[in-house]
Amino acid sequence: MVDGFELFTDRSVVAMRVNGELRDLATTVTPTDDVTPVTIDSTDGLNILRHSAAHVLAQAVQTVNPEARLGIGPPVTDGFYYDFDVAVPFTPEDIKALEKAMDRIIRQGQRFVRRVVTDDEARAELAAEPYKLELIGIKGTVSTGSTQATDSTTENGDNESVEVGGAELTIYDNVDPKTGETVWKDLCRGPHLPNTRMIGNGYSLTRLAAAYWRGSEKNPQLQRIYGTAWPTKDELRAYKARLEEAAKRDHRKLGQELDLFSFPEEIGSGLAVFHPKGGIIRAEIENYMRERLLANGYDLVNTPHITKGHLFETSQHLNWYRDGMFPPMHLDEEVDAEGNVTRQGQDYYLKPMNCPMHNLIFKARGRSYRELPLRLAEFGTVYRYEKSGTLQGLTRVRGLTQDDAHIYVTQDQVRAEVASQLEFVFETLRGYGLTDFYLELSTRDPKKSVGTDEQWAAATDTLRQVGEDSGLELVADPGGAAFYGPKISVQARDAIGRTWQLSTVQLDFNQPELFDLEYTAPDGTRQQPVMIHRALLGSIERFFAILLEHYAGAFPVWLSPVQVIGIPVSEQYEDYLWEVLSTLKSSGVRVELDSSSDRMQKKIRNATLQRIPFQLIVGEDDRANGAVSFRFRDGTQENGVPVADAIRRIIASISTRAQVLGAADFAEAGSPVALVGAPGADEA
Amino acid sequence: MVDGFELFTDRSVVAMRVNGELRDLATTVTPTDDVTPVTIDSTDGLNILRHSAAHVLAQAVQTVNPEARLGIGPPVTDGFYYDFDVAVPFTPEDIKALEKAMDRIIRQGQRFVRRVVTDDEARAELAAEPYKLELIGIKGTVSTGSTQATDSTTENGDNESVEVGGAELTIYDNVDPKTGETVWKDLCRGPHLPNTRMIGNGYSLTRLAAAYWRGSEKNPQLQRIYGTAWPTKDELRAYKARLEEAAKRDHRKLGQELDLFSFPEEIGSGLAVFHPKGGIIRAEIENYMRERLLANGYDLVNTPHITKGHLFETSQHLNWYRDGMFPPMHLDEEVDAEGNVTRQGQDYYLKPMNCPMHNLIFKARGRSYRELPLRLAEFGTVYRYEKSGTLQGLTRVRGLTQDDAHIYVTQDQVRAEVASQLEFVFETLRGYGLTDFYLELSTRDPKKSVGTDEQWAAATDTLRQVGEDSGLELVADPGGAAFYGPKISVQARDAIGRTWQLSTVQLDFNQPELFDLEYTAPDGTRQQPVMIHRALLGSIERFFAILLEHYAGAFPVWLSPVQVIGIPVSEQYEDYLWEVLSTLKSSGVRVELDSSSDRMQKKIRNATLQRIPFQLIVGEDDRANGAVSFRFRDGTQENGVPVADAIRRIIASISTRAQVLGAADFAEAGSPVALVGAPGADEA
Repeated sequence: MVDGFELFTDRSVVAMRVNGELRDLATTVTPTDDVTPVTIDSTDGLNILRHSAAHVLAQAVQTVNPEARLGIGPPVTDGFYYDFDVAVPFTPEDIKALEKAMDRIIRQGQRFVRRVVTDDEARAELAAEPYKLELIGIKGTVSTGSTQATDSTTENGDNESVEVGGAELTIYDNVDPKTGETVWKDLCRGPHLPNTRMIGNGYSLTRLAAAYWRGSEKNPQLQRIYGTAWPTKDELRAYKARLEEAAKRDHRKLGQELDLFSFPEEIGSGLAVFHPKGGIIRAEIENYMRERLLANGYDLVNTPHITKGHLFETSQHLNWYRDGMFPPMHLDEEVDAEGNVTRQGQDYYLKPMNCPMHNLIFKARGRSYRELPLRLAEFGTVYRYEKSGTLQGLTRVRGLTQDDAHIYVTQDQVRAEVASQLEFVFETLRGYGLTDFYLELSTRDPKKSVGTDEQWAAATDTLRQVGEDSGLELVADPGGAAFYGPKISVQARDAIGRTWQLSTVQLDFNQPELFDLEYTAPDGTRQQPVMIHRALLGSIERFFAILLEHYAGAFPVWLSPVQVIGIPVSEQYEDYLWEVLSTLKSSGVRVELDSSSDRMQKKIRNATLQRIPFQLIVGEDDRANGAVSFRFRDGTQENGVPVADAIRRIIASISTRAQVLGAADFAEAGSPVALVGAPGADEA
Repeated sequence: MVDGFELFTDRSVVAMRVNGELRDLATTVTPTDDVTPVTIDSTDGLNILRHSAAHVLAQAVQTVNPEARLGIGPPVTDGFYYDFDVAVPFTPEDIKALEKAMDRIIRQGQRFVRRVVTDDEARAELAAEPYKLELIGIKGTVSTGSTQATDSTTENGDNESVEVGGAELTIYDNVDPKTGETVWKDLCRGPHLPNTRMIGNGYSLTRLAAAYWRGSEKNPQLQRIYGTAWPTKDELRAYKARLEEAAKRDHRKLGQELDLFSFPEEIGSGLAVFHPKGGIIRAEIENYMRERLLANGYDLVNTPHITKGHLFETSQHLNWYRDGMFPPMHLDEEVDAEGNVTRQGQDYYLKPMNCPMHNLIFKARGRSYRELPLRLAEFGTVYRYEKSGTLQGLTRVRGLTQDDAHIYVTQDQVRAEVASQLEFVFETLRGYGLTDFYLELSTRDPKKSVGTDEQWAAATDTLRQVGEDSGLELVADPGGAAFYGPKISVQARDAIGRTWQLSTVQLDFNQPELFDLEYTAPDGTRQQPVMIHRALLGSIERFFAILLEHYAGAFPVWLSPVQVIGIPVSEQYEDYLWEVLSTLKSSGVRVELDSSSDRMQKKIRNATLQRIPFQLIVGEDDRANGAVSFRFRDGTQENGVPVADAIRRIIASISTRAQVLGAADFAEAGSPVALVGAPGADEA
């Protein structure tokens, strides 16, 4: 019997997987065990690093303030947090002191030592920690409580729940390497780094928030400290630089600067209004989607935003999803003069999803196998009751428009349809300038699923094959499927390397059953179709935010609210400039003329701040030669372009969906090659 | 002093206007009175005819059933009704007997004689009529109670209220001309025909319904008999023929036959789902509207379907329009462990109108006079709580998408903007094949209005001038304006001569005040803009229904769900046919190939029933010659058209928005002239 320290001498190995389970390096293994190393820079390794850092944070807090009581402290995307019950909330000054205390613990190289305990032992040892006592005996998932913070810049936000306990209850002791004494301990499932020294100096505490214990407003409010941790100081610096870049691109900030959208307090949280310049971008997104849908065999349907509750009973949403729905409206009750109810009313609900209504369209008449695949698509605005603390700009809202489709296929058509769906997704996203993808395969959570083992195995297999055939990286997401069937999703990397889950393709064997969906097969028998849920952009609001951040507001020409602005060197050139602009306008180009009294330099600065792709500047030379001069968003210029040429190239840059930041892009966008070969060129 | 009988000897004169007020011909007038005749075929004359027929119906009912108690009996669009409290509801057999009894009364030529009474006299005379007693003393408007009937084929439905009383209370006596005796009487404002004989034989009782007394479910249910009446039997026959034609075109019937939309019981009354073939028509309508809006200086915005109630308090909708709104949803209330409310929640409402949200966009930042007119347009889906009994197909629904716009202008811009709005409306409607318009000017109801006399006078004057300048017929609608400002509306006549109110342009001086809307004028002062509410199609649902009935399902090519269907003479021609269809498809034409096992004649019949504009039929001659044969919706054909020519002409018929019912239309639609000159041609 050996342990991980003997097996793996590489110092970047911080833990291992034994027969698939994550374990401390100190765990002893036998030759029949399947053991693989976990390095600090892997996803698992980073989580362990951050989890250990969270422990050290808690230890530091109790060093500074022994009265602090511990909540929980899991790793989250890019970092970790720990919740504390303290008499006085932490201040930014406390953070500095805590980092110093953490540094001391880290330098000591305390060992993380795992120890199995009984429930009673744990209760005795942690008698002073009321929250830990509450966790003892709970095996499974505990809601962590999302915070009230609204300044998070991470995409995924906090984990919504963490696992506590496991097969055995364990405590991790922090052992002083010199004295061998346990100087701190925590109820924890592990695993951890071998010792605190391995946390190094690539960590930082980042912000404070408040969160209810176990996510319920009925519980005490705890104080949460967030941190981030990386294998090296350089990686920490790179992360902070990414955050700064992300903050510069924050869609909420750009949305206001570019006058694209707002969230009027009068309307309510999470409900966006799109101003003219945001509205035209939205309309362009929808137009392009509609074109592509129609060219690819989809039918456009249209359904209401409200329905009687009964529909969502049939679909089981009122069972599985009630908390995410708005409260009902009670209608159509009739009362006589004496106040007696003479006709029972109905509860109506805002729809949180479109699927049940599309099922009704499928069912509106008999269907034949000849009609399958039947692809029903809708820009369906749905309403979901998100807690106000979890709302975030356009990425987490209460009203969202899904570019939703439900595709009804025979069992035999599933594979080919999913494959062609993925092709459709990639082609479409490339049209928006997103080109860097990988796939995620979400499989069954046996605790929360309907359907037979065979159904799941076959469906998952189909999705895996299609994923592998795509040639893209395929990442496993075990247990991440919805209860009704497995899912394959398209993750896209944006301009600053962040990944966003965009498109999802989900198989569903449950709803066809719940709604008694049927088609007539070639042999005359009635068969149940398979249903595929497909959202391509996800929601238009969130996709809008992603594009806005991806482009840092400098949209490709076709999406720019104002595509061309005319800036006369002086007033006498306005008429000439307006003639050029009018010609563009009559071809559907969105133009403006800056005829304000501002000086030319100010006009150029304004147009640049507004990220307008083409500034047409006209002075004497231009007018005399029937030309215009271009200034681009990056400050480069191209002077004396003949008007006809300028118009042709501007229009080409729109129809090819080109991105034009500077003179070089424009030369390319206007060339005949770009018309057929550019990424995002129309499939003409 | 003379009366109308002496003034007007023309027998078609049935009443007169004396100083603007409608009066019986028996009224005596003085030389200083302004007197104009009312002929039976005028709108006023028809209303009087129908009102008198309603009296005769009531008299007939009480002749047959003396126990029947009288409700009210006004004229309505194309007819009249009377409500009765009877122990046993009427049956269709009763109708025959009642018509016979009416015929007898009509032949007797009973005179209608007006008599002014005091309240007490009226109470004494009508002691046996409890409903009449209730009306005595009420001066003003009484809700009539809409019926539970859903089979009405009239566009406007029933009047929703009638005037009772007036300056004086009057009873009309029916006097036997032979005996001079009063044989029947009714509390009535009049005026009436001189005698019952003038009703003639152009009337008919049409249907039965139930309605609550004074429109309230808390009151007794009465039995309503509907009738129609016309100056001559021929006009009655023509009306019945129109009804039959309208029934054939009924959009609810066609909607089902053509698989366009449905009202699933699972979703709820008045909430339509659009199936694929209806969805594509909707999408085409919206696309065309969007194109036109963008080409005409509109901005597209986007707002949520729900909002905190406070917004509709500011806009006064919760004051003036609460009954038409869905009940609230209560959100965001927080309760602690003891059940105490720790955070007050909010009432959220589905929006019944978009205007308040557009006002928030106007207010989102400071506005300059340079930005005006600012035209905010949205396809805004709104929800209105219509009583279930008043719902009717797509013309009266609970969920509707308005093609709504709000235009903010300076006082000086009002006239030019309204004029250009009307131009825009006419041009757009012509694009849909609607070409026969008149205007209606709805003016102030002094009892329900805000604003000063000067504001109303100036605004009404502006609208009147614009209306007159349009050269169209301008009909007065006194008192028909909303409380916030006068309205000009565009009424369109459809293919069978019915008129529909489509576009409305309303001035509003109230909301800019309620929302504190401001812009900076050239002199730097803050000024209040005028707001114009403009709906062009009204709602997409209702406009869809109107188009469907106007075209009896045979839409112009661009709106047809399937534009071309391929029908091979036998299976061996399918490949050739599919090649032709594929070429069309790649140009965005909606094609189908009927490769079913049906015989060719059946395929042709199916395609004709589906109103598909172009049936491409291919046999040996066609394939040998690289041609196709056309069959059109009216059964005409054009054989052996070379493929390239066929494709060019089909595409031309779409881009010119042509209507093609037969070979002659197609010849015209395909000609170069049609491309530039046809009604509805694109403004290229």
